[in-house]
Amino acid sequence: MRMVDIISKKRDGNSLSKAEIDFFIEGYTKGDIPDYQASALLMAIYFEDMNDEERQNLTLAMVNSGETIDLSAISGIKVDKHSTGGVGDTTTLVLAPLVAALGVPVAKMSGRGLGHTGGTIDKLESVEGFHVELSQKDFIELVNRDKVAVIGQSGNLTPADKKLYALRDVTGTVDSIPLIASSIMSKKIAAGADAICLDVKTGAGAFMKTEEDAEELARAMVRIGNGVQRNTMAVISDMSQPLGFAVGNALEVKEAIDTLRGNGPEDLTELVLVLGSQMVVLAGQAADLAEARAKLEAVIASGEALAKFKVFLENQGGDASVVDDPSKLPQARYEIDVKAKSSGFVSEIIADEIGVAAMLLGAGRATKEDQIDLGVGLLLRRKIGDRVEAGETLVTIFSNREDVTEVKAKIYASIQIAEQASAPKLVHKIITE
Amino acid sequence: MRMVDIISKKRDGNSLSKAEIDFFIEGYTKGDIPDYQASALLMAIYFEDMNDEERQNLTLAMVNSGETIDLSAISGIKVDKHSTGGVGDTTTLVLAPLVAALGVPVAKMSGRGLGHTGGTIDKLESVEGFHVELSQKDFIELVNRDKVAVIGQSGNLTPADKKLYALRDVTGTVDSIPLIASSIMSKKIAAGADAICLDVKTGAGAFMKTEEDAEELARAMVRIGNGVQRNTMAVISDMSQPLGFAVGNALEVKEAIDTLRGNGPEDLTELVLVLGSQMVVLAGQAADLAEARAKLEAVIASGEALAKFKVFLENQGGDASVVDDPSKLPQARYEIDVKAKSSGFVSEIIADEIGVAAMLLGAGRATKEDQIDLGVGLLLRRKIGDRVEAGETLVTIFSNREDVTEVKAKIYASIQIAEQASAPKLVHKIITE
Repeated sequence: MRMVDIISKKRDGNSLSKAEIDFFIEGYTKGDIPDYQASALLMAIYFEDMNDEERQNLTLAMVNSGETIDLSAISGIKVDKHSTGGVGDTTTLVLAPLVAALGVPVAKMSGRGLGHTGGTIDKLESVEGFHVELSQKDFIELVNRDKVAVIGQSGNLTPADKKLYALRDVTGTVDSIPLIASSIMSKKIAAGADAICLDVKTGAGAFMKTEEDAEELARAMVRIGNGVQRNTMAVISDMSQPLGFAVGNALEVKEAIDTLRGNGPEDLTELVLVLGSQMVVLAGQAADLAEARAKLEAVIASGEALAKFKVFLENQGGDASVVDDPSKLPQARYEIDVKAKSSGFVSEIIADEIGVAAMLLGAGRATKEDQIDLGVGLLLRRKIGDRVEAGETLVTIFSNREDVTEVKAKIYASIQIAEQASAPKLVHKIITE
Repeated sequence: MRMVDIISKKRDGNSLSKAEIDFFIEGYTKGDIPDYQASALLMAIYFEDMNDEERQNLTLAMVNSGETIDLSAISGIKVDKHSTGGVGDTTTLVLAPLVAALGVPVAKMSGRGLGHTGGTIDKLESVEGFHVELSQKDFIELVNRDKVAVIGQSGNLTPADKKLYALRDVTGTVDSIPLIASSIMSKKIAAGADAICLDVKTGAGAFMKTEEDAEELARAMVRIGNGVQRNTMAVISDMSQPLGFAVGNALEVKEAIDTLRGNGPEDLTELVLVLGSQMVVLAGQAADLAEARAKLEAVIASGEALAKFKVFLENQGGDASVVDDPSKLPQARYEIDVKAKSSGFVSEIIADEIGVAAMLLGAGRATKEDQIDLGVGLLLRRKIGDRVEAGETLVTIFSNREDVTEVKAKIYASIQIAEQASAPKLVHKIITE
């Protein structure tokens, strides 16, 4: 088998066999196939796409390119959740204890990564003492006993995907549905997921700006998952504005606590219930989405969800008393209100610009070496469709430095006030096949 | 300027500016732009093509990537001829002295290369003593005095094209009209051509199998040439069967002598007159193709063309007495006739299979290190459309080894005899714009 023939075959619009895809991924991972042949194939895939079978084979080949996590010692169906990423996305912090309270095992591997705010681990580290340095054995015991634990990323998972992603980034081949979908799905499967719940964001703050693109990606991932025997569902949710009110690490932990208590922002609460219902159904703990939702609402109302969050924090060394006294979370030195300059209805809050504003305060990392300031961030006081009078607060800035001129300018530039506006639809679509 | 943006721009179907194409070619030649970005751009060009301006800019960027030959010391318009390559293509050996006899300066740089038979230099070296190791000064003096000289390839011409060609070969991006056309034209322009005459072959033995593809390539090259102020014309000629009768180095020299004397094969003679007419018109030595052809026929009839060949050989150390006594050329030890197994009309002589048969005898090089056996080769005794009776000779093999079983099998497999067949059209089209 020659790589140049595989490139030409795809270039001519033909489907690649499992053997050809395996040859490419194995050879590329080992370094036998050079970057210049890989990038030519990626560009050919960009133009000629891949059918369902090719996408599944590419995903599995990337899974098999490195180590995989064995969660078979955990009883029950392990459901993983993945979000394509947005601003102020606190869903994981809420979902993990919430579905665990219903007996769904949540064995989460999470990272730090780059972005507007930290990753799930950074956020949880706002709780004093909390750590993710667990042995594989302790991790599995915790999940079996209490149904929820989070561990840091370890092992050499999907090295082919890492190498290909770096190459795509510099060769104009990022925006390709088969490549995006197989990349995401390979990571979830390598991390041991039996079933997968996907939150595909759409709108200005999302990778997929249009609903059509988001739906295409969601469908691609659901078909890959189901095609390789991992039950998969997806939600297409709005990311034209940030989710919830909080954008920042400790601020989002507090918002998660509010939501588990039943007092969270309306949109965050709704999305958590939609995604949580899917996770519960995928885990086989409810017959349908309606039954799952009722069960989730019940454990919020009963306090079981919040209690599970406390157990989760304590199990991993965290000070669970923050749940009842959020003032123990890292605080910012300054609270500065950004006030509306005119009256009307908020018509636009550009999510990624708000994310950049939070990053300017120190809430996120631009490079791997950056330190995160856990106490800083933003709280939205109004969301799209809300009425505001001139002089009322739009956003509160939580900062550890007094001069926030640049941050304020960013916020003003990203928020529009109009005569009329209504809230955007939160859940655009549920994709199950 | 970032290479990834240039790749994405072409990927999205946009035209690249001169500055972007120069950035790519300069950076790639220097090694600042890696192969993996170049191959991604090549594949994007494969799918999205280039317009006339981009093709011209790419050609000139490749010309400017290295040294160029300065032929300004040679008086007159220097016309270069290029063939896209075929089997038994003796045209250059005939054309060089033929048009020189009319005063058209032929300052030819030629190579050895790989193929079924040797390159022009290899063929000429069948003449004892002939060599191409001329100083630049002697080369120019010879062309100014006698209008014809051949020199070996020297200098670092179009390094960008060499690097890109090697990359295209292993990334499935060879078959792209803008890339093929700019590659050929850049080499001709860097070698100092003022005007260019192109022989684009079509048929089973050619790179371009269909007439449509050959015409597209011819038009692309003619438009590049005329766009960068090099008058360019093209002929689309048949390569379904080998040109002329001879396939082999010394055999082709003898065939060239026959043709210069007016006794050459009909198809070779016709193609030489068509291409030669273009060269004479491009050199400004005739007002139109008809006048040019008449002049060429006159110098063949008068013996001036053959006399010019003798002068050419002598000027470069060759024994010109071979012209009158071709038995002085390298001879093969064995002549073996391949006879028709049935009666009928020859309906097919697959050109590239005949080429492979010649190569098996040692007439060409598979690798750079191979030695060419100048005396061996094949003589076709019948061509497509000719009547043959069972037992009559189809092909004579000239070999230095007695066992030619494999060569015979190759020849039988490539020649078909049918109840009816007619000769293929030799000149399909003349492209002048």
